[in-house]
Amino acid sequence: MNFNYYIPTKILFGPGKLNELQKEVLPGKKALIVTTAGKSVKRYGYLSRVEKILDNKGIKHVLFDKILPNPIKGHVMEGAELAKKENCDFVIGLGGGSSIDSAKSIAVMAKNNGDYWDYISGGSGKGKPAINGVLPIVAITTTAGTGTEADPWTVITKEDTNEKIGFGNEHTFPMISVVDPELMISVPKELTAYQGFDALFHATEGFIANIATPISDSYALKSIELIAKYLPICVKDGNNIEARTNVALANTLSGLVESTSSCTSEHSMEHALSANHPELPHGAGLIMLSEAYYTFFADKVPDKFITMAKTMGVDVDSLKEEQRPMAFVKALIKLQEDCDVQDLKMSSYGIKEEDIPGLAQKAYETMSGLFAIDPYKLSMEETIDIMHKAYK
Amino acid sequence: MNFNYYIPTKILFGPGKLNELQKEVLPGKKALIVTTAGKSVKRYGYLSRVEKILDNKGIKHVLFDKILPNPIKGHVMEGAELAKKENCDFVIGLGGGSSIDSAKSIAVMAKNNGDYWDYISGGSGKGKPAINGVLPIVAITTTAGTGTEADPWTVITKEDTNEKIGFGNEHTFPMISVVDPELMISVPKELTAYQGFDALFHATEGFIANIATPISDSYALKSIELIAKYLPICVKDGNNIEARTNVALANTLSGLVESTSSCTSEHSMEHALSANHPELPHGAGLIMLSEAYYTFFADKVPDKFITMAKTMGVDVDSLKEEQRPMAFVKALIKLQEDCDVQDLKMSSYGIKEEDIPGLAQKAYETMSGLFAIDPYKLSMEETIDIMHKAYK
Repeated sequence: MNFNYYIPTKILFGPGKLNELQKEVLPGKKALIVTTAGKSVKRYGYLSRVEKILDNKGIKHVLFDKILPNPIKGHVMEGAELAKKENCDFVIGLGGGSSIDSAKSIAVMAKNNGDYWDYISGGSGKGKPAINGVLPIVAITTTAGTGTEADPWTVITKEDTNEKIGFGNEHTFPMISVVDPELMISVPKELTAYQGFDALFHATEGFIANIATPISDSYALKSIELIAKYLPICVKDGNNIEARTNVALANTLSGLVESTSSCTSEHSMEHALSANHPELPHGAGLIMLSEAYYTFFADKVPDKFITMAKTMGVDVDSLKEEQRPMAFVKALIKLQEDCDVQDLKMSSYGIKEEDIPGLAQKAYETMSGLFAIDPYKLSMEETIDIMHKAYK
Repeated sequence: MNFNYYIPTKILFGPGKLNELQKEVLPGKKALIVTTAGKSVKRYGYLSRVEKILDNKGIKHVLFDKILPNPIKGHVMEGAELAKKENCDFVIGLGGGSSIDSAKSIAVMAKNNGDYWDYISGGSGKGKPAINGVLPIVAITTTAGTGTEADPWTVITKEDTNEKIGFGNEHTFPMISVVDPELMISVPKELTAYQGFDALFHATEGFIANIATPISDSYALKSIELIAKYLPICVKDGNNIEARTNVALANTLSGLVESTSSCTSEHSMEHALSANHPELPHGAGLIMLSEAYYTFFADKVPDKFITMAKTMGVDVDSLKEEQRPMAFVKALIKLQEDCDVQDLKMSSYGIKEEDIPGLAQKAYETMSGLFAIDPYKLSMEETIDIMHKAYK
């Protein structure tokens, strides 16, 4: 047992917490606010609330509101140019994972020269170290999906090559993150489900990962328990603040899992799908892969699967021993049914079955690192086979 | 559910981890090494290993090796004078909780004027804010007891008034903590047990505290589980590195509990005992109080007691419902028997039964804050009654 624990982010968690940002010392006199091209942060008043907090604190601000649901390198470079031109001292990511991840990457490129892909490891990235550090990052999350408020990771797509790759280091943790479930009430039903499953898979992957520790396991199991219990309630009644709060907590816990363990190759495979089909929500892609993925691994780490099944509320002891690991997969499918996402199909997003070998190849090329963290080393054939089984 | 999460410490955890300190960026060119007056850190070579790491990194160092098991304000002031005189950039606490707590307090007084007690809230402290910040702190722990490597707290005794009071703020977290169980092999049997129970009570108090959150609960339950399983093994065979590692992890988790929840009044009562009887080890004092303390609270938060009993491995479901909360207390006593600490007596340390009302009063005067965190508000009479029941 040997690990490093480092999560320097201050997390303000709970309904109404956005108001407390007013009391925090923020890292400078001028902020770049990075947010989505969608209208929700404006329509629901989240942006104006943040701007008012900054005004009250005498902090100037510049808005960059172009971020797409699957965020792209072009916007990272454009946002970083703006931050430099406007002499911003720090970056605020306001929105879902796409806005916060973009804020992190913009914070890197506001301090480091060249192209963002110079610093990416994997695919066509050059893997250079980002030696100049990053601008301080503040994250205000309006969704419960990526856990990015509690981890150093950012995932950006290079739009000309369709590579979707993660990046992060000790400096890309947010300095302060606000997780205010009241800001999540407005997330529509389908996205609530997709994002909730993204959070779930951060926990389940981090739990079966070969670098898991007792600390990451604690976060992961609590996250799995809360998602199983509260996500169906959130999906059915988005106004239920208790359920929203518990799913938000599960998501933050999943971010802590990302900071102490890691995703596995399920995420590599999904990034290949949504990088090539940007209209596919990341969480939906993971749901499509999940039954085949976890079925494959059930007999590789059966004890972990039994623990996950128990954590989801399955009475595992009443089952025959050989049925117990797959009880997790059954509980997962039941949860997908309860959240109305059991019928998602790759074909609905234009993915063709004959594309699968190429997509599997791309998963390896761009995010090979996560395959090394799987509890069993997948061959290319096994990877293709999982993706074929997931196809419908 | 509403909380702030902030634990900026980087923790290097695992057997052999001290060597990795070499690779970390340390916060300055000259360090004050704060360590115990006892001989163990020298005899076992821990001090020379740390000095060699600093030498290799070109960092100068000054030694302050006067710290007592129950550390005192006089040494905080003396160490801070030395740090200022020698222009030290940071402070390294090397040893048990006493050395690391002293390092934290010295780091405060190296930057703030006046007397340490000016900044203490409670008792005769003046409660002034320590506005000048603190020197950066590095913690290298050689025991598994206080969890101070993973929390902002330091507990110091004012020797002329026998007040033992905690202090901490956002700046008194260690910047880096090394938790290397190989350094704990040398801790003798009795201290191993006392320190292990201190760690346990940080977890159990933090779990029943009225400010507990699902995150602090995750840390607390894992800590309780590990202590119950591995502390008796550690006590019987101090060379068992697997057991030492798991107890070290439990202790670090308990520190994380201290950072996310809090101790309760059991600690206030114990501080009154050991402040007046400095030869009483803190963990031993807690053990003496524990049966009476937890018996009192068992019917106040029965569900939490049942969860703690389950976590300690008790088959709670086989018991009658009314017996279940007290199953935790029974498991606690069994654990004390397994660690050969069931017969500890206050009278062995010179505490007289007629002193108890005065000691209870002192617990209130010096650390009233923790009584407010109990799951039930104790009256003075109830406090005295608990301490009387604990007396033998």
